[in-house]
Amino acid sequence: MRTIDWVDGAIELIDQTLLPQRVEVRRITELSDLIADIQRLAVRGAPALGVAGALGVALIAANVQAQNESGTDLDREEVRRQAATLREARPTAVNLSWGVDRALTKLEEGADAVLAEAIRIRDEDIAACISMGLRGADLTRELASKDRVRVMTICNTGSLATVERGTALGVIQTLLEQDSLEEAFPLETRPLFQGARLTAWELQRMGAPFRLLIDSAGPFLLSRGIADAVFIGADRIAANGDSANKIGSFSLALAAKHAGVPFIVVAPESTIDMRTASGADIEIEDRGVDEVAGFGGVRTAPDGIGAVNPAFDVTPHDLITAIVTERRVILPGRGESPENVSLEPLRS
Amino acid sequence: MRTIDWVDGAIELIDQTLLPQRVEVRRITELSDLIADIQRLAVRGAPALGVAGALGVALIAANVQAQNESGTDLDREEVRRQAATLREARPTAVNLSWGVDRALTKLEEGADAVLAEAIRIRDEDIAACISMGLRGADLTRELASKDRVRVMTICNTGSLATVERGTALGVIQTLLEQDSLEEAFPLETRPLFQGARLTAWELQRMGAPFRLLIDSAGPFLLSRGIADAVFIGADRIAANGDSANKIGSFSLALAAKHAGVPFIVVAPESTIDMRTASGADIEIEDRGVDEVAGFGGVRTAPDGIGAVNPAFDVTPHDLITAIVTERRVILPGRGESPENVSLEPLRS
Repeated sequence: MRTIDWVDGAIELIDQTLLPQRVEVRRITELSDLIADIQRLAVRGAPALGVAGALGVALIAANVQAQNESGTDLDREEVRRQAATLREARPTAVNLSWGVDRALTKLEEGADAVLAEAIRIRDEDIAACISMGLRGADLTRELASKDRVRVMTICNTGSLATVERGTALGVIQTLLEQDSLEEAFPLETRPLFQGARLTAWELQRMGAPFRLLIDSAGPFLLSRGIADAVFIGADRIAANGDSANKIGSFSLALAAKHAGVPFIVVAPESTIDMRTASGADIEIEDRGVDEVAGFGGVRTAPDGIGAVNPAFDVTPHDLITAIVTERRVILPGRGESPENVSLEPLRS
Repeated sequence: MRTIDWVDGAIELIDQTLLPQRVEVRRITELSDLIADIQRLAVRGAPALGVAGALGVALIAANVQAQNESGTDLDREEVRRQAATLREARPTAVNLSWGVDRALTKLEEGADAVLAEAIRIRDEDIAACISMGLRGADLTRELASKDRVRVMTICNTGSLATVERGTALGVIQTLLEQDSLEEAFPLETRPLFQGARLTAWELQRMGAPFRLLIDSAGPFLLSRGIADAVFIGADRIAANGDSANKIGSFSLALAAKHAGVPFIVVAPESTIDMRTASGADIEIEDRGVDEVAGFGGVRTAPDGIGAVNPAFDVTPHDLITAIVTERRVILPGRGESPENVSLEPLRS
């Protein structure tokens, strides 16, 4: 099962807003539908958004090409103009603009070259998740000094956040496959319940032993020794190692530090933004009152109230034990950071 | 507005299961209706349950008296028998049996004396909340070194948990009345949303400026300086100052400490249990999977999963700046605790 893919000239993606009740694949042929699906979180998760950005540019190029009845050259300015609107669909998600920009590097070579680059990004994502899983599983056993571990995670960082397998949840799947997973503790992840709806569904499908927690139980249960490690994904990692991720991550990091439990960020290197010096430079998207005031048609709060609803938070690097990428392990806890391990030579 | 009261020979209480959609006052003249309302959480909150227990005994005594057509003495054995069924309505709620037992101490003096004692318990609760509010407001301005403060709170500790005003939310109301409240930030309080349903409704009614947060946003926003103080109530305070309260409190305490923000527990001295040495001795009730897997008929998680669902957590005394009671301020941050401030001489 792939979360997002290119199938017969169109983007196909699983509509994650319908899970776990229904598995429905949407077929997208228009940019406006892709932007709407990104904004309503039908597709979400940093790596999947990178692939969505790249495939989106391929779709734009194909559509602009098709409208070009005179058979002249591809209108590259029009492709760039539409790509700019796609890039802005979700401002905090650096992977989206990364995927858009990388696909655009092939624009001079035409629509087919753009599509080939987008497909390459998809395949690299699949390979990166396998690599992160293996590296993360090794690191976890080493840090915990145990062969079988209990792990906590937040949001959805599984297949549904990537193309296949996932980042933080990919490590959990690898631990399971290696008979090293004692139990997983996913947090439900208010306001949109990605943990309850998506991660619990994925864990159940893979046959992992797990129990669900409300978000605010995670920090307390860490203090009572329920887990040997915490894994999260990342939406953006700054040059100094500060990491933006789903709201609730900061709270887990603080509790992990307090409990002496390793706190591990798992993300592909495309998530690292060397132009962002630190977490203070990361803009936090506020998603408004409606998500906070209820869920799924059930209103919890009175009408007419306001809310503060940050979609993400920022975990300072001094609360992060390790950052696991597809190519290496960076240890902020030992003074390492993306900027001082010189990522560039190895980056694609 | 009183959450529970004695009006013209009957108990009147606000049905909290209908909030915030509807404000409905139920008039109760039969013990069976009171027991049913306690069991379905139409009335809740430790102090309010104490008053419900005492007024319930007054209702029993009045009814037994009225049925006594021959005009002989009150059938005390019948009153005690019915009171025992009331005491068992919620076996874990210690305040309920405390209220029942205290009203029964006046049974020898007749039904009117029982009612007078129940009214006294009601009035003591109102007075205690006023006192905590004034003391807490003074302390907050002092600790924050500001005349107008921004405060964060969790769960419902307002009028609806007491008779009037409340504990932690009573401090916020006092700050508002003293023109010292810049803004309040209530947390929604999963899994039962007491913050979104009840606290937001109370804040709206009192005309307080506020914005609602999901629980896991609280710790992060504290790190970004959104509030000058955090207030919580307590279900039980151990002799060393460790405090059990709604799940999520620990996480807020950790973040408040990290951000250098005062963390203040507001509770009447009846909440202090000197027989409990520390938080390690407090048993944490697990309320099962159903509350975690959805809300209000909307299922979030897949069927067939498990959960860990602690109803409470325990905040260690070293994360607590102050405990505000109706009689004093205890400062665990400066080495004070219930056991070393010698509470007994001043206790009622």
